[in-house]
Amino acid sequence: CFCAGGSHGLSRLFLQVKVSPGEREELRRTSPFTEKYFPQTLDHFNFNSQGNRTFNQRYLITDRYWLKGHGPLFFYTGNEGDIWDFALNSGFITELAAQQGALVVFAEHRYYGKSLPFGLQSFNVPEVGLLTVEQALADYALLISALRGQLAATRCPVIVFGGSYGGMLSVYMRLRYPNMVAGALAASAPILSTAGLGDPSQFFRDVTAVSPVCLSALLSLLLPDYRRIQEKLSLCKPPSSPEDIYQLNGLLRNAFTLMAMLDYPYSTHFMGNMPANPVKVACETMLRASGLLENLRDTAGIVYNSTGALGCFDLYSLYVQCADPTGCGLGSNSLAWDYQACTEINLCYDSNNETDMFPPMTFGETERNIYCSKRWAVLPRPRWLQTQFWGDALSAASNIIFSNGDLDPWANGGVRKSLSSSLIAVNIPGGAHHLDLRGSNDADPESVIKARKTEADLIAQWFFHITREPQFC
Amino acid sequence: CFCAGGSHGLSRLFLQVKVSPGEREELRRTSPFTEKYFPQTLDHFNFNSQGNRTFNQRYLITDRYWLKGHGPLFFYTGNEGDIWDFALNSGFITELAAQQGALVVFAEHRYYGKSLPFGLQSFNVPEVGLLTVEQALADYALLISALRGQLAATRCPVIVFGGSYGGMLSVYMRLRYPNMVAGALAASAPILSTAGLGDPSQFFRDVTAVSPVCLSALLSLLLPDYRRIQEKLSLCKPPSSPEDIYQLNGLLRNAFTLMAMLDYPYSTHFMGNMPANPVKVACETMLRASGLLENLRDTAGIVYNSTGALGCFDLYSLYVQCADPTGCGLGSNSLAWDYQACTEINLCYDSNNETDMFPPMTFGETERNIYCSKRWAVLPRPRWLQTQFWGDALSAASNIIFSNGDLDPWANGGVRKSLSSSLIAVNIPGGAHHLDLRGSNDADPESVIKARKTEADLIAQWFFHITREPQFC
Repeated sequence: CFCAGGSHGLSRLFLQVKVSPGEREELRRTSPFTEKYFPQTLDHFNFNSQGNRTFNQRYLITDRYWLKGHGPLFFYTGNEGDIWDFALNSGFITELAAQQGALVVFAEHRYYGKSLPFGLQSFNVPEVGLLTVEQALADYALLISALRGQLAATRCPVIVFGGSYGGMLSVYMRLRYPNMVAGALAASAPILSTAGLGDPSQFFRDVTAVSPVCLSALLSLLLPDYRRIQEKLSLCKPPSSPEDIYQLNGLLRNAFTLMAMLDYPYSTHFMGNMPANPVKVACETMLRASGLLENLRDTAGIVYNSTGALGCFDLYSLYVQCADPTGCGLGSNSLAWDYQACTEINLCYDSNNETDMFPPMTFGETERNIYCSKRWAVLPRPRWLQTQFWGDALSAASNIIFSNGDLDPWANGGVRKSLSSSLIAVNIPGGAHHLDLRGSNDADPESVIKARKTEADLIAQWFFHITREPQFC
Repeated sequence: CFCAGGSHGLSRLFLQVKVSPGEREELRRTSPFTEKYFPQTLDHFNFNSQGNRTFNQRYLITDRYWLKGHGPLFFYTGNEGDIWDFALNSGFITELAAQQGALVVFAEHRYYGKSLPFGLQSFNVPEVGLLTVEQALADYALLISALRGQLAATRCPVIVFGGSYGGMLSVYMRLRYPNMVAGALAASAPILSTAGLGDPSQFFRDVTAVSPVCLSALLSLLLPDYRRIQEKLSLCKPPSSPEDIYQLNGLLRNAFTLMAMLDYPYSTHFMGNMPANPVKVACETMLRASGLLENLRDTAGIVYNSTGALGCFDLYSLYVQCADPTGCGLGSNSLAWDYQACTEINLCYDSNNETDMFPPMTFGETERNIYCSKRWAVLPRPRWLQTQFWGDALSAASNIIFSNGDLDPWANGGVRKSLSSSLIAVNIPGGAHHLDLRGSNDADPESVIKARKTEADLIAQWFFHITREPQFC
């Protein structure tokens, strides 16, 4: 029941800015957004559990681009992290708002960032029990209603946006609230695999597929010479038990996974300062003359030691037990994500060293049950997400874009082929994890420029049919 | 904050068989249904509140008509009462199953009948908190999935049926779970007014509209001669306070309301033995030579004293404080309905003696809040149902029949005009509350025969497109 731990205490399903506090403050200050709080209903689904208590839900808003009375509301359905990180890394949405005259809101997901319903007690049992997808969606629905009322925009169409788990939430908003949401752009949203519809070996197979040159390297870890492994890999202690080796395998698997996800054509500040094209850098590193283990150490260092400040790798702090084998972490954000991975969201991906380059590491239903009941006093409900959000039977839905980059191991857990004339799959050759949501960059490949154009056109169509009449919205 | 109490402790939104225990047993025995129980998840929306506890949810099932491997599943989404009562009063569904080769299931709503999650403690605070529309829908979704699995019918299309609140649930099942529900017949479902979209005076205006001859009669209650009122109306005690008069007004308003709802062309065994065409009988009674008050007594007696066993009318047992001014009651069923009327379902209907024939009786947001916080420690959320289930913005939905009879005061709280080529309103001239769901009867008007034919054809289309392929479902 061990699984891959998150480096730097962050979940892998989202990308967090890793800059200094000063730089961060400056980024926020120069952004168009104002930070606000909404008194949100604490429990939407039990009228007796919390009375009418509310908590302060954070959201960011800008009307800089809004053609009030005509323009739509672009609403980002925040996912597992501080909402500023999504706002500062989804430049496409504000660029599109400037083109299309939209009001822009980024809403923070309950139990993340500063939207902690019970403050520091939020991750106690049973307080954590109000962390569910359904509660988060209801939060967004009430926030949208309230904002439309406050801003005299009751009839303005709403388009939802999200990347990764946020993209899943965007899809769900359109399925659940088509009365208020005209359409959704779901970037890199693994809505099928997280609902338990998929092959457990898909994820790490796809990590391997984008990193072919590294294949043989990891096999060398099967060497039993632990002392040598410690020295060459700069581990803080020599591995001396099967558990230690498991931790080491997980730590390395994580590094390759993260570089595949974040394989952007320019340097980014997510989870350590990632170089441009990190997979290329990794493979170049692996091919150095130094020796396989040294190369592996340096490759892992791209992720874990970008500043060079780390003297050695500690197997038990860089890799922690959790319910998301693609990586989860140590901070309070990752606590919330770990709970979600223990309840509704299925992330049981395995490596087997046959269809992928990693050592065999299994995280199946049994291991998940054991971990989750011990950690959170819950049992996962593997079929629940599929029941609630239609699984792969999406034909009754409409106005959803499913975009995916083919470098991204999450891509094949999502919708890759259009399902109807209004359920459109957009593929981005050479694209990493929701590259299309990022702002324009000179290094952008043609594919993402084209994808953004397609997305912009589709989105305009969705609200044009609502606002083309000469009345205010 | 007083409101109309239910006669015989029953909610007005559904029709309960009122026969002797022996007759009831015989009806069940000769029905095609087998009674079963399903271990249902207790709390779908909070993984920590009840652990993995389940309760026994009752359902009735018959495969007598089923063309296994080809036929659809007809699933009745049980509403506020004992599920046998719906099964025994919805003969249309089994008649249609015989025609179309369907498996038939009637599922009992949690907190009603024998599906009490906490037994006798179910109506305590906070145990009652798990009584919500969302929980009930999730119950039905899990039951459908489980039954399809058990019966090797995983791909068989499901059609949901319901009358009144059960019809609302059928609509919601199609909105929420179109992946598993191919279509819905919602008979007499006031989905708009209960979501707070409507005119509070509509309901009693429509009761008045179908009982025009009685108009002047009720006004006589404004006479201040309480002793005479007691004698002539056979009250157990003379009314001596404004509260007593309020109770009396409510009691009488209830009687006329119930007769309008149950104005079937043949005698029925709902809530006392109702004669055929009770509104006609009531109006004949009101026109007798005896005197207005005596006539009013006898008219009320059609509802409250059909056996003649009641020596006098007790104002405080025939009429009780509750959150549903169209009538709610004393038994455990009505406790559950009262809670639902205090939380999600809006039933704030007023009479004003201007647009209707009843004395002015207001039950607005303020009165509801006071009553509900005192009775159940909750505050209603009047806009919640509208948010969750799309309000009147239903255009993204499909495959729903909204049927209504024009004698029924609930009708104009529902959808009366088709919204698209697959959101069909069926009107039944001369029809009372979900007459179309009842089995065929020689006294049926042509209108209901035609309506059932239309419904049968639409339903066949919904599953034909799924099962026309030569494969098993």
